[in-house]
Amino acid sequence: MDNESFRAHGHAFIDWLADYFEHIESYPVKSGVAPGEILSQLPLSAPEQAESMENIFTDFRQLIMPGITHWQHPGWFAYFPANNSPESVLAELLTAGLGAQCMIWQTSPAAAELEERMMEWLRQMLGLPEQMEGVIQDTASTATLCALLSAREKATDFKANARGGLLPLTVYASTETHSSIEKGVKIAGYGRDKLRLVETDHRFAMSPQALEEAIDADLAAGLRPACVIATLGTTSSMAMDPVDLIGDICQRHGIWLHVDAAFAGTAAVAAEHRWFMKGVEKADSFVFNPHKWMLINFYCSAYFVRDAATLVKTFSVQPEYLKTAADNQVKNYRDWGIQLGRRFRALKLWFVLRSYGVEGIRRMVNHHIGLARQFADWVEADRDFQLMAPRQLSLVCFRYKPEGIAGEKVNALNRRLLDKVNASSEVFLTHTSLKGNYSLRLSVGQRTTRLEHVQKAWQLIGRAAKEINPR
Amino acid sequence: MDNESFRAHGHAFIDWLADYFEHIESYPVKSGVAPGEILSQLPLSAPEQAESMENIFTDFRQLIMPGITHWQHPGWFAYFPANNSPESVLAELLTAGLGAQCMIWQTSPAAAELEERMMEWLRQMLGLPEQMEGVIQDTASTATLCALLSAREKATDFKANARGGLLPLTVYASTETHSSIEKGVKIAGYGRDKLRLVETDHRFAMSPQALEEAIDADLAAGLRPACVIATLGTTSSMAMDPVDLIGDICQRHGIWLHVDAAFAGTAAVAAEHRWFMKGVEKADSFVFNPHKWMLINFYCSAYFVRDAATLVKTFSVQPEYLKTAADNQVKNYRDWGIQLGRRFRALKLWFVLRSYGVEGIRRMVNHHIGLARQFADWVEADRDFQLMAPRQLSLVCFRYKPEGIAGEKVNALNRRLLDKVNASSEVFLTHTSLKGNYSLRLSVGQRTTRLEHVQKAWQLIGRAAKEINPR
Repeated sequence: MDNESFRAHGHAFIDWLADYFEHIESYPVKSGVAPGEILSQLPLSAPEQAESMENIFTDFRQLIMPGITHWQHPGWFAYFPANNSPESVLAELLTAGLGAQCMIWQTSPAAAELEERMMEWLRQMLGLPEQMEGVIQDTASTATLCALLSAREKATDFKANARGGLLPLTVYASTETHSSIEKGVKIAGYGRDKLRLVETDHRFAMSPQALEEAIDADLAAGLRPACVIATLGTTSSMAMDPVDLIGDICQRHGIWLHVDAAFAGTAAVAAEHRWFMKGVEKADSFVFNPHKWMLINFYCSAYFVRDAATLVKTFSVQPEYLKTAADNQVKNYRDWGIQLGRRFRALKLWFVLRSYGVEGIRRMVNHHIGLARQFADWVEADRDFQLMAPRQLSLVCFRYKPEGIAGEKVNALNRRLLDKVNASSEVFLTHTSLKGNYSLRLSVGQRTTRLEHVQKAWQLIGRAAKEINPR
Repeated sequence: MDNESFRAHGHAFIDWLADYFEHIESYPVKSGVAPGEILSQLPLSAPEQAESMENIFTDFRQLIMPGITHWQHPGWFAYFPANNSPESVLAELLTAGLGAQCMIWQTSPAAAELEERMMEWLRQMLGLPEQMEGVIQDTASTATLCALLSAREKATDFKANARGGLLPLTVYASTETHSSIEKGVKIAGYGRDKLRLVETDHRFAMSPQALEEAIDADLAAGLRPACVIATLGTTSSMAMDPVDLIGDICQRHGIWLHVDAAFAGTAAVAAEHRWFMKGVEKADSFVFNPHKWMLINFYCSAYFVRDAATLVKTFSVQPEYLKTAADNQVKNYRDWGIQLGRRFRALKLWFVLRSYGVEGIRRMVNHHIGLARQFADWVEADRDFQLMAPRQLSLVCFRYKPEGIAGEKVNALNRRLLDKVNASSEVFLTHTSLKGNYSLRLSVGQRTTRLEHVQKAWQLIGRAAKEINPR
């Protein structure tokens, strides 16, 4: 494709995207294709000869689009947000066009230095301690793995492996912790059975007392507690582990404290919601995802550490072909994580943070939280519904519980309710399990979600409840 | 930013990129900024108020662009290619605009099913065994880590951790292996001292005999050989480890064989270059990077495994909030790697493979290899220069070696030569060390590189040699 064709197709794609943004509500939020439906329409082999972009783009619209679930739809209330913004999309376009591989400072100094400053901006915005330094990771899964690896290295003084294997190290997180913790524990070689899932209180937050008991028991058994993962905003119910109290326990025992605030972290930009960050200065590492609730395109996970030297020590290898004259004066972020290769991801942060200003991000957060609060009020006011966890930030966990129905029947009822609501194609909600109860989740966080969309969700839920009402 | 502004800025950005592609040769290949130069121009804190896109874009051009090293410049001969294409950039634009987070099938069936088919296309294009299945990883570092983790799990029958730690497992790779292997071995908890660096022959390829000796010695010492990593196309000199012979050894001992063909793999699309793939059917896993030499934007690493069940067993965790009705009928790629979150990366593969056709990719590969061959001929014909390794595919390793100069002086001379050549800003080459000798590398792989650019590199090298000639 020559430059003039790129220009023409590029304009057409931009126009198509602008139309997509404008008419996104005409798409069903969740794709309705059946398993294998798209696969069966794709040729078994790559074409030998070149095809025209016109054909490819036509196929994209006709074949691929029906299989897209629209995360940017204002009726998106599922899982967690992964909101983007036009400004972020434009920055992604430039990043892709430049095609710079920013593995070390020399291979694009602007990428390394912009990343350093953007991490500093984010650190200040969330009120993280001054000595923390940050690096962009792809996901919170990866960032948490980095924390688990650093904790492992630190607990063994970077020497254990030379003695022929890991010491029996233990890791602690609440029963409500994210699945990536279990995965990370497994990858880092702790052994799945070395993960202690600590019980939670009535708000689904980790019990510091139960944590301390678990640590004491392991110490008594000759094990070495290496890492505690506190969650600020659990996936199921946005529960907030008491980092302040947990931090005291960790400091007392010399245990690495990692704070996973993947979703909730963004809310700390608003002073009135920052309460959950109390004690975060006791953390060794902290992660939150600007690609979740800060209008930044996926991937962009912000990982902060109190002692960058430990992180670099965990990952640094120095082959001849990557040595440069600047190595002692600059940050080579390849040593701050798993991958060698690095995309220029700081650019979208720069575009979005400047386009919205801290004030704009704060306003969005407050708007979403306000909508969730409104929805929770409706749930509480309706005697056929109940909250399943305290409404926290932008997440509401609830269920349909008509009088006279109990036990497993309520779970079955809510499964049917969710299917019915999602079948509307106008909204998409997902579920979780809270104390064994099947619970619906309404997570607000899409950039264009307004009151009317939350109202629509509540209407659809009410209507579906009437239709399946067993009375 | 409203949709009309997005349209206007989007068109302007596309036009700017088209101009950038057109005038890319007017930029110095390697950024010349000093450490800290860009950082010092960036505000210390995020702006409280929103700023206009006009200002941001102006800053991008004036402040960021001087700090970009231009990987897409036709004078790019450094490291390895990370070539992209207009078609891939356009696909990235759509991926960013849709903003779909494709962690599981349900969150965008088209992404999962297109990925499955694209991996199948690539498998066929490279002539990989029929039973292999693929998944997109971000980088070869991550893919190799996946291989090391699968090998670890398999060697311990997924049970060792329950017994309180890893068995003393060992890993084998050549002395020329990529730094990511050492990093992966460390991350996976094998212990750095469990990595055996096997000696190479005069072509820098792993010696199967030395491999077998190392395995035998470890077995005799009560250790358990778990993984061999064979490299097809080493970073330093594009050496090809003899996979066929190595595969026999691995099969005999039940050792996991991972093949790292990150750079070279693409060349297998051309039958005349596929010889190095001999024996690849004996591999348990294989990785190559379409984001290196296949016109696909970074990140896009293609990881293939012979037994997908082992991969899934290594990574699978199944929390309630991610369960869906389709789980038994579809591929949920979150279980095929480290990260839960997944970007819609198959789209750019689809756009590029269709836009160029297999024939187009093959033509590009042959063109690049032809240019490298030409350059190697010039080196060989000049008695003041010498090849430092056999020219393999698109990489030439060479040095300036005027008569009468020897030892460390030659190294120093070549360091100066490289600095002088790169100071031209017209080309960018990097170095490596081969048998202790500082060697220059000319790696050809940029989409728009033509004969004249390789000629220019040779001219600049010759001129620099004359200027620094100590005689």
